[in-house]
Amino acid sequence: MNITIWNENVDETRGLETVLAVHPNGIHNTLKEIVAELPAVKVRTATLQEEHCGLPDEILNDTDVLLWWGHRAHDDVPDELVERIHKRVLRGMGLILLHSAHYSKLAQRILGTTLDLSWRDDVYERLFCVAPGHPIAKGVPSVIELGIDECYTEPFDIPAPDELIYIAWYESGNVFRSGCTWTRGAGKIFYFQPGHETNRSYLHPDIRRIIQNACEWAAPTSWVEPIGVPHIDETLESKRLRGQ
Amino acid sequence: MNITIWNENVDETRGLETVLAVHPNGIHNTLKEIVAELPAVKVRTATLQEEHCGLPDEILNDTDVLLWWGHRAHDDVPDELVERIHKRVLRGMGLILLHSAHYSKLAQRILGTTLDLSWRDDVYERLFCVAPGHPIAKGVPSVIELGIDECYTEPFDIPAPDELIYIAWYESGNVFRSGCTWTRGAGKIFYFQPGHETNRSYLHPDIRRIIQNACEWAAPTSWVEPIGVPHIDETLESKRLRGQ
Amino acid sequence: MNITIWNENVDETRGLETVLAVHPNGIHNTLKEIVAELPAVKVRTATLQEEHCGLPDEILNDTDVLLWWGHRAHDDVPDELVERIHKRVLRGMGLILLHSAHYSKLAQRILGTTLDLSWRDDVYERLFCVAPGHPIAKGVPSVIELGIDECYTEPFDIPAPDELIYIAWYESGNVFRSGCTWTRGAGKIFYFQPGHETNRSYLHPDIRRIIQNACEWAAPTSWVEPIGVPHIDETLESKRLRGQ
Amino acid sequence: MNITIWNENVDETRGLETVLAVHPNGIHNTLKEIVAELPAVKVRTATLQEEHCGLPDEILNDTDVLLWWGHRAHDDVPDELVERIHKRVLRGMGLILLHSAHYSKLAQRILGTTLDLSWRDDVYERLFCVAPGHPIAKGVPSVIELGIDECYTEPFDIPAPDELIYIAWYESGNVFRSGCTWTRGAGKIFYFQPGHETNRSYLHPDIRRIIQNACEWAAPTSWVEPIGVPHIDETLESKRLRGQ
Repeated sequence: MNITIWNENVDETRGLETVLAVHPNGIHNTLKEIVAELPAVKVRTATLQEEHCGLPDEILNDTDVLLWWGHRAHDDVPDELVERIHKRVLRGMGLILLHSAHYSKLAQRILGTTLDLSWRDDVYERLFCVAPGHPIAKGVPSVIELGIDECYTEPFDIPAPDELIYIAWYESGNVFRSGCTWTRGAGKIFYFQPGHETNRSYLHPDIRRIIQNACEWAAPTSWVEPIGVPHIDETLESKRLRGQ
Repeated sequence: MNITIWNENVDETRGLETVLAVHPNGIHNTLKEIVAELPAVKVRTATLQEEHCGLPDEILNDTDVLLWWGHRAHDDVPDELVERIHKRVLRGMGLILLHSAHYSKLAQRILGTTLDLSWRDDVYERLFCVAPGHPIAKGVPSVIELGIDECYTEPFDIPAPDELIYIAWYESGNVFRSGCTWTRGAGKIFYFQPGHETNRSYLHPDIRRIIQNACEWAAPTSWVEPIGVPHIDETLESKRLRGQ
Repeated sequence: MNITIWNENVDETRGLETVLAVHPNGIHNTLKEIVAELPAVKVRTATLQEEHCGLPDEILNDTDVLLWWGHRAHDDVPDELVERIHKRVLRGMGLILLHSAHYSKLAQRILGTTLDLSWRDDVYERLFCVAPGHPIAKGVPSVIELGIDECYTEPFDIPAPDELIYIAWYESGNVFRSGCTWTRGAGKIFYFQPGHETNRSYLHPDIRRIIQNACEWAAPTSWVEPIGVPHIDETLESKRLRGQ
Repeated sequence: MNITIWNENVDETRGLETVLAVHPNGIHNTLKEIVAELPAVKVRTATLQEEHCGLPDEILNDTDVLLWWGHRAHDDVPDELVERIHKRVLRGMGLILLHSAHYSKLAQRILGTTLDLSWRDDVYERLFCVAPGHPIAKGVPSVIELGIDECYTEPFDIPAPDELIYIAWYESGNVFRSGCTWTRGAGKIFYFQPGHETNRSYLHPDIRRIIQNACEWAAPTSWVEPIGVPHIDETLESKRLRGQ
């Protein structure tokens, strides 16, 4: 499995200490450590600062699962890249949208809604699994004491998830659909709310396990047939009903 | 629209003061006052103490929407009544399962899971709408400050709802899928968590409105065709493909 | 209920006889006759040839349900109009996508997939209802002998419908998810496959009834609250947990 | 992975030649040959004629995925066995319901509907995949020329599937939701229509592959936590909000 991790890498490049205190090598490298624990996996990172944002077609076409973390630089991601990633997802590449990636052009384009929500820093959070037996929840307790992260609250303007996996409880009086899946074309998509840049959620063993599980879940099957077949001239009608 | 409200009516019959303080004429009559505000509606009540539990076939067959409130007497409901209601739902009767009705034989039979959950009395609760635009949420704010009710918590062992309408937040650190719909056969089902017998949720205007909306949503359309058609001998094949 | 019917009106403007033979006043006026049978409805039409394609904001904002029929001029619809309609749907306007509207920019933008399919002219078609009791199927037999229409075949690249209402059978050896619903934001969307410009499906009483039902189903409820609330500073935490 | 295959084995025991011509060792052994091709799998068979129908608790508790084929002897399956299998599914055992198993007590109990349909022998059938990228469709063409099998037709009285994978086209003018998934509790369920006892569908390589894929998909994850936690006395409230 080839995994590519994309991070806007803006706070890190600017040397923001509150972020570097948690992610000394950038959020992308924190995430790389998580998914590198999976067996038989090849992990790349890519950032906004690289040419083609680090995601030319030869990388995208060689990627099974793409993780996306963005925050304050959504507008700096070129539309043509959003378009290329969108097409690649429809053809089967898995996509893990992390935390504030909900507001990325990519999420809005693929899901077709605003993904609006309200937020508040540093709130105590718990996660409840509402899909026991789902591969993304494998080996994880049904209630996760996450600790302090950014509160994201309903109403959350998303299409009804194909599968709702996690609901968050926040001490501030809020709830959130924190773990959601959708399929678009042949591509599987997972949105996962934890992971504000100054909080330590990606160091929590249950969160790490969920991200690993999500990569395995989102990896494409061997289904590679282009969408749009069968060609209508080769249908049963011509072969059978016409007596050929 | 003909609405029938069923209540086990056990605490009330025993004269339990904590219940009668909120529902002086029984929970069924509190609910009757709510739905009687709907236009062009005929409302009946039925209780465990009546013959056939108040639900002989002539009543069920004349009911568009059945509300069900039960709590401590689930085992006293005859299996044959559960069977008759189940069949009636599949043929189109709407069903509103209220609060502890989650543990009724009826809910378990129709939904096919245990509906297990954990609970705790007297917790501050808010409700968040996660399906804006749904008819059940019509005219209701997206966040409801419910106040004190019984906390029901995830994990809640239900089939994934066809539509998730409300998620509850509890001060005790819990969340719950409090408003869920399913369709079975031609029958629409709504489960709604608020309404512990000693709490005042059914006096809350938003809760009243949701119950009213749910009745209108669950009422059968004019679709009355028996399931199981078409008869296979009258298919296109015999009429057209064979040249008749 | 205010209904607006949009038609590209290209074949009609060019005087294509095979189309005018079925729709002497254009497809939009055929559709207008259908929905005008609904009670208490105000119906407008709009076409590609009009200023702003006939859909300036004052019309869109006064529209409860928009019907969309397009075919060969998808690329001529301005992106800014697609954007405006998209936003209006998220805020609650219903949208009925008819036949080849699957390939409109609007459908692709809102649903986030290619909506690819294969097609073939003039094939015998039947429709099977797989959601008995759904308001869109109200009063319609569970099997519709549609007759000759254009065959659209699976694989159809759509997001899994929130509700699958109709599956089409074609004599040519094909099937299609012909009636599908989605909700995006507060807006309800219905895609309905019948209605090729040279076929007579819109004269079929069951098809007319389904389009009428779909308008009633898609009309917005009175839910008008902007998405994105509650404002996070006014949460329970500040009012209650802090003892204020 | 431990797979158990259950077959009523009635036609075979009676020596019905039309069945034995296709399944010389019984349908259970045809299915055994299919799933035995999976890596690292242990396969058992069980039949109606054995003590406890071959499914005492020690077998069920050691089964990851149960395949169920029944036809004319549904009523002979004891209610207590249906109850035990139901509970086992909710705790995570996968269940593959094959062909006429739709009418088994087990399917009706778990799904809560009648599973009514109409049928007709020996009709040409094609299958269309409508969920590209789903693990159950892995490595299988999007259109399967199945050949002759029993026609099952819509309307099919099932709960809306969590995922619709295959739709069947029949030459007789019928369609059917032939491949459907549901999750109940922690257990995954797949219904798959092909496989009439006198037809050769289980010899078709694509059908064999789908059954193999379904076993891998339905196998339980390592999620083993009992449903119904957390115990409400150990919630966040007591640990954190009360300052302990």
